[in-house]
Amino acid sequence: MLPSQQGYDRAITIFSPDGRLYQVEYAIETVRRGAIAVGVKAKDGVVIAVEEKPRKLQISENAHKIFQIDDHIGFAAAGYIPDARSQADNARFFAQSNRIVYDEPVDVETVAKHLADQCQQYTQFGGARPFGVALIIAGVDSHGNSLYLTDPSGTYIAYDAVAIGSGSEQANDFLEKNYKADMSLDDAAALATACIYLASDQKEGTDHIKMSEIKTASRQFVKVSEEQIANYAKAAKQKFPTPNA
Amino acid sequence: MLPSQQGYDRAITIFSPDGRLYQVEYAIETVRRGAIAVGVKAKDGVVIAVEEKPRKLQISENAHKIFQIDDHIGFAAAGYIPDARSQADNARFFAQSNRIVYDEPVDVETVAKHLADQCQQYTQFGGARPFGVALIIAGVDSHGNSLYLTDPSGTYIAYDAVAIGSGSEQANDFLEKNYKADMSLDDAAALATACIYLASDQKEGTDHIKMSEIKTASRQFVKVSEEQIANYAKAAKQKFPTPNA
Amino acid sequence: MLPSQQGYDRAITIFSPDGRLYQVEYAIETVRRGAIAVGVKAKDGVVIAVEEKPRKLQISENAHKIFQIDDHIGFAAAGYIPDARSQADNARFFAQSNRIVYDEPVDVETVAKHLADQCQQYTQFGGARPFGVALIIAGVDSHGNSLYLTDPSGTYIAYDAVAIGSGSEQANDFLEKNYKADMSLDDAAALATACIYLASDQKEGTDHIKMSEIKTASRQFVKVSEEQIANYAKAAKQKFPTPNA
Amino acid sequence: MLPSQQGYDRAITIFSPDGRLYQVEYAIETVRRGAIAVGVKAKDGVVIAVEEKPRKLQISENAHKIFQIDDHIGFAAAGYIPDARSQADNARFFAQSNRIVYDEPVDVETVAKHLADQCQQYTQFGGARPFGVALIIAGVDSHGNSLYLTDPSGTYIAYDAVAIGSGSEQANDFLEKNYKADMSLDDAAALATACIYLASDQKEGTDHIKMSEIKTASRQFVKVSEEQIANYAKAAKQKFPTPNA
Amino acid sequence: MLPSQQGYDRAITIFSPDGRLYQVEYAIETVRRGAIAVGVKAKDGVVIAVEEKPRKLQISENAHKIFQIDDHIGFAAAGYIPDARSQADNARFFAQSNRIVYDEPVDVETVAKHLADQCQQYTQFGGARPFGVALIIAGVDSHGNSLYLTDPSGTYIAYDAVAIGSGSEQANDFLEKNYKADMSLDDAAALATACIYLASDQKEGTDHIKMSEIKTASRQFVKVSEEQIANYAKAAKQKFPTPNA
Amino acid sequence: MLPSQQGYDRAITIFSPDGRLYQVEYAIETVRRGAIAVGVKAKDGVVIAVEEKPRKLQISENAHKIFQIDDHIGFAAAGYIPDARSQADNARFFAQSNRIVYDEPVDVETVAKHLADQCQQYTQFGGARPFGVALIIAGVDSHGNSLYLTDPSGTYIAYDAVAIGSGSEQANDFLEKNYKADMSLDDAAALATACIYLASDQKEGTDHIKMSEIKTASRQFVKVSEEQIANYAKAAKQKFPTPNA
Amino acid sequence: MLPSQQGYDRAITIFSPDGRLYQVEYAIETVRRGAIAVGVKAKDGVVIAVEEKPRKLQISENAHKIFQIDDHIGFAAAGYIPDARSQADNARFFAQSNRIVYDEPVDVETVAKHLADQCQQYTQFGGARPFGVALIIAGVDSHGNSLYLTDPSGTYIAYDAVAIGSGSEQANDFLEKNYKADMSLDDAAALATACIYLASDQKEGTDHIKMSEIKTASRQFVKVSEEQIANYAKAAKQKFPTPNA
Repeated sequence: MLPSQQGYDRAITIFSPDGRLYQVEYAIETVRRGAIAVGVKAKDGVVIAVEEKPRKLQISENAHKIFQIDDHIGFAAAGYIPDARSQADNARFFAQSNRIVYDEPVDVETVAKHLADQCQQYTQFGGARPFGVALIIAGVDSHGNSLYLTDPSGTYIAYDAVAIGSGSEQANDFLEKNYKADMSLDDAAALATACIYLASDQKEGTDHIKMSEIKTASRQFVKVSEEQIANYAKAAKQKFPTPNA
Repeated sequence: MLPSQQGYDRAITIFSPDGRLYQVEYAIETVRRGAIAVGVKAKDGVVIAVEEKPRKLQISENAHKIFQIDDHIGFAAAGYIPDARSQADNARFFAQSNRIVYDEPVDVETVAKHLADQCQQYTQFGGARPFGVALIIAGVDSHGNSLYLTDPSGTYIAYDAVAIGSGSEQANDFLEKNYKADMSLDDAAALATACIYLASDQKEGTDHIKMSEIKTASRQFVKVSEEQIANYAKAAKQKFPTPNA
Repeated sequence: MLPSQQGYDRAITIFSPDGRLYQVEYAIETVRRGAIAVGVKAKDGVVIAVEEKPRKLQISENAHKIFQIDDHIGFAAAGYIPDARSQADNARFFAQSNRIVYDEPVDVETVAKHLADQCQQYTQFGGARPFGVALIIAGVDSHGNSLYLTDPSGTYIAYDAVAIGSGSEQANDFLEKNYKADMSLDDAAALATACIYLASDQKEGTDHIKMSEIKTASRQFVKVSEEQIANYAKAAKQKFPTPNA
Repeated sequence: MLPSQQGYDRAITIFSPDGRLYQVEYAIETVRRGAIAVGVKAKDGVVIAVEEKPRKLQISENAHKIFQIDDHIGFAAAGYIPDARSQADNARFFAQSNRIVYDEPVDVETVAKHLADQCQQYTQFGGARPFGVALIIAGVDSHGNSLYLTDPSGTYIAYDAVAIGSGSEQANDFLEKNYKADMSLDDAAALATACIYLASDQKEGTDHIKMSEIKTASRQFVKVSEEQIANYAKAAKQKFPTPNA
Repeated sequence: MLPSQQGYDRAITIFSPDGRLYQVEYAIETVRRGAIAVGVKAKDGVVIAVEEKPRKLQISENAHKIFQIDDHIGFAAAGYIPDARSQADNARFFAQSNRIVYDEPVDVETVAKHLADQCQQYTQFGGARPFGVALIIAGVDSHGNSLYLTDPSGTYIAYDAVAIGSGSEQANDFLEKNYKADMSLDDAAALATACIYLASDQKEGTDHIKMSEIKTASRQFVKVSEEQIANYAKAAKQKFPTPNA
Repeated sequence: MLPSQQGYDRAITIFSPDGRLYQVEYAIETVRRGAIAVGVKAKDGVVIAVEEKPRKLQISENAHKIFQIDDHIGFAAAGYIPDARSQADNARFFAQSNRIVYDEPVDVETVAKHLADQCQQYTQFGGARPFGVALIIAGVDSHGNSLYLTDPSGTYIAYDAVAIGSGSEQANDFLEKNYKADMSLDDAAALATACIYLASDQKEGTDHIKMSEIKTASRQFVKVSEEQIANYAKAAKQKFPTPNA
Repeated sequence: MLPSQQGYDRAITIFSPDGRLYQVEYAIETVRRGAIAVGVKAKDGVVIAVEEKPRKLQISENAHKIFQIDDHIGFAAAGYIPDARSQADNARFFAQSNRIVYDEPVDVETVAKHLADQCQQYTQFGGARPFGVALIIAGVDSHGNSLYLTDPSGTYIAYDAVAIGSGSEQANDFLEKNYKADMSLDDAAALATACIYLASDQKEGTDHIKMSEIKTASRQFVKVSEEQIANYAKAAKQKFPTPNA
């Protein structure tokens, strides 16, 4: 948590004497406090995963932090999740409009840029707070497999693998050590799972893990089944043992 | 009650240094202070119930905290009830528009998402406070029986059974212990009644209990009669004895 | 009077840390400070009465706190009376529109809900303060006799008998003790008069009492004459003696 | 003068913890500080008078605090006079519109209600301060002679005789003692003059008195000549001697 | 200079507890600090004069504080002069519109009222400060010669002679002593000149005096030449010797 | 630099108790801190000059503080230069519109008044700060040679010669001593150059001087070449030696 | 970092007593804290370069701080990069509109002026903060090679070579010492590279350097390949050794 900053942090559209936008930094803090989300690009697809701990009677069939945007695009979120849903709706509309206007699926980077542009607007104009959520966008388009990160500042960056949210610093170090450019999607999913074990206080089981993947061949963003997640978890334990497990 | 937070809680659209939206948290506190509302999904229907203590000369024929949205959907509210009425009107209009446009009844999740989307908007844009109410939405549609919870943050989550408002923490524990996936609607109603006894300081009688249910077969959201509530109350005492009764 | 609340009470659209909307509570305090208004539903009609103490040269032919809305509906107000006039104008327009659109008199509850909806809006959106007035709405429609209470929070509730304003707590206790469901309109008017004697510091005479009634048979909201009020006052002294008279 | 109220008096659309609207009370204080205005209804007409002390070279042919609205209506003002002129313009337009739409002169009460409705609006909505002026409206219409008072709160009340502004409390007591329902217009004018002597520090002469009257027979709002005011002043001294003269 | 008033003077549209509008009073203070302007009505015309001290290389052919509005109307200003120009532009447009609509020159009072109405609006509505200037409006129309004063409060008053700005209190006393209703325009101009000598620290010469006049016969608002001002100055020294000269 | 003024200087549209508009005074302070600009009117033309010190690799072919508005008009600025560019764009559009509507070049004074009117608007209405720049406008039209000064208050004044910005007080004294009404354009340019030497800390060379001139004969606003400026600088040293050189 | 300035720095559209716009200065501080960007104009083209340090798994194929605007124009940014993207989108739209309207490529200065005009607007009007980014715009048009700098104040200036961001003061000194007007594009690129070594804490390698160039002959803004950057780096070490390398 950042210390309070003499009022420069009380209004959105204002710089502090040292040239910082505190509201944007606080929104990023919201992301940091959220449960971990992770994305890994493989040679034959892309996988994203989140930690979700449902209450006992909650129906957790569908992930609340993973959103499908189009056939070939989806994202995982960390931070203030209702904002992620708002961005998902916007992205879906944007992707559909693109299909109607150009008669072809939208590029993944185009969606990432569009969402980041929106984030930037909310940091410059009054009347609304910045978005309190970061997104890991996964997709496959004519340029191949893509993985993008957007954050509340309006930045978007392409990654081979990235984690956001609580524990993401360790997870990113772990990714940097273990990521390989020619990974199979199965290994990528196992690595993503290992990252969640690393960040979570729940070191066993998979009921707190949600995952979606998209294969280069099919270009279909699909939910990974619980059985399959269990397989990835087993592989994770073997191939990517985490220091604190 | 949460302690005051140095002014970060005086404006809606502002993050605190630790990434929190205090106005949203305070609105959730409003929900916590409201009388209990509870919803339970059964194999043959869904039931929702609220505690309402009318003054002596108040006409309490109709519940003030249970709202019918469409033939097949209704909700129970906890918190600032005039806001619930505002959300009910909005949901009715939304459901009717859906019927006109698509010529079929709206899905329950679609309504839950619509109401949660509205809540999210009120947390991001200036000029209005967040909604001060949480809703337990019950309905039956082509996907079967549904029970959703929305709250002031703009979150919506599907549950098998859930309680909100004053005493809901105990009630949720009680639900988790006693809920069974293959419950009959009668048992579900008795369990909901038990939750109200658990949370209320009135441990006998039913004049403080309002209830509505919807059967999978009929897909009609209907008010439960006082006699029937009395039956459920009897069953509750036998099947789901509460620790403090 | 409530103590000042560290600034959470300086803006309309803001929750306090304990989930309260202070501006709404202060508006209700305005109601509490107003002179008493009372309504009683009888088997053959509904009566509403207010205390009004005109200055000596004021022309008090017409009540300032009782407003006719349509042939079959009227209301009595306590609190900031210019706001009541504003709500009356709005309700008249609403009732007339209903006649034009549906070619039949509007239901009493529909008017009560409409006025309460307006109140709710003024508690959620910026740019205006909440209404500072509560209303006791009396009417007869196809559902029979009706008596509704609306308040600044946007709540509306049906009552058999209810009092608002200064001294209304005692008056409501008195109503609860003395109200009978099968009362005649004459007895109801006497009971209402007794409530005003109870709350007022003027324990004799009727120049401070204004009253209107609507009979089930005629469905005409009419002013009660001074002579008739005097008769009710006599009946009140006999049938409903007040403790402090 | 009222003491400052911890900031509850810094914004228009806000209630204080004890349910008061301080800005409205301060606007009424503006009225209280203004020079006296008085109106008296007689059996054969209505008279209004104001105290105006012009500087020596000011041209005081026309009263600055008495405004004609229509042939049959005019008003006298106390408080912030430029606001009175704004209300006069509005009332003239309203009266003319009424003539055009209904082809008959507007009722006096209709004008009074219209002006009071405007005042109420300025107490509820942001972006403008309340009006700082009270008006004594005199007129003759098909209902006979009328005298209305409007104030910054949005209240309007019919009176037989009433005074506003500095010294109005004494003047109202004096009116209550001396007013008679069957007074002639001449006596009413003398009584109004006496009230101004009572409130003013100038106890002789008439150069500080402006007066207009409207006779029941003519229904024409007219300025009273200086000679006629002098006659009324003489009559005032004889018929309504003031304690401090 | 008035003392600061605890924040009641920080916003335009707000009354202080003693019923004052401080922003309006401060705007009048702006007028008081401006260089003197004076107007005198004669039997055969009207004259207005201002003190203007140009820097040495400033081109002072035309007065900056005297504005012609129409053939037959002009005004002199004291206070924040750019505001006077804004009011002049508005008045010219208003006067021209009047000519087009009614095919005759606008009345002087109509212009004065229009400008004062504008001033009143700026004291009541948010989003702009009051005008910081007072105007002495001179003209000749079918009602004869006219002289009006408007100020930031929205007041307008007819005068035979009046001064505003720094030193205007003494000047007004001087006018009251020396003004005569049957003065010639020459004498009026000399008197106006004397007032400027009285208020200014420059007691000789005429390079700091600007003057315009309008004759009843011609109804043409014209600039007074420097030679003519010198003549008036001589006459002033003889006929209206000032105490401190 | 002016001392801080208890908050009266924190909002644009507000008077201080002594009738001042601090934001306007601070904007004028911005002008005072800017590098000097100077304008001199000659019998056969008008010249304007500014001090500009480019960094070593800056391309200083064109002056950044001198703007051409139309063939026959241009201005030099001191203060916040981006605001000058905004005013220049506005003036160009205004001048072009004039040509299209009236089919003749706009008068110089018309442009000066238009720019000053804009400045006045920004001092009265909320939502924007005043302009932070003063302009010396030079031009030739059917009235002959013109030189105008506008400042953030909305004032515009015609001058024979004037300087603004840092050191302008000395420069204006110097102008007053040395200016002659029948100067040639060459002498005027030399005088302007001398003023810049006087105000600048660079007492030799001409790489910090930019100049434009307009001849009465050609009515073409043109840039003065570096060679010509060097000539003027030589003449300045001889004809107008400055005390501190 | 500048010290806090008593609240004059809390709102955009406000001057401080010493005539400064603190929000603009703070935005410029944001630029100063950003990683270095540099531009150098050669006789046969223009080159721009930035320092970018990607995380290990970030895909850094494309520069995030260099934006192509049209075939013949691009820019490098320092400061808050999401704002640069917003300005890039705006500039692209502007350039395309120019092509459509005039059927020819837009001038580089026209784009620079357009972007600076936008910056100025954001310093004068409320509702949004200033842009927090400075841009080095490179292009070739009919006027030859161009290099412009825009900053948050709304200033734009042409340069032969310029650096912005962290360490730019040293870099600009270095440019001034080493820049030659007849440099080849290869030498210019080596000099730009040297500037980045000077400012960066990474004194070897080129994975932190991104570069684009545009040749006078081709008028095509193109990315410089990693191999070519390595060549430039070698040349930089030889031709432009930096003091701290």
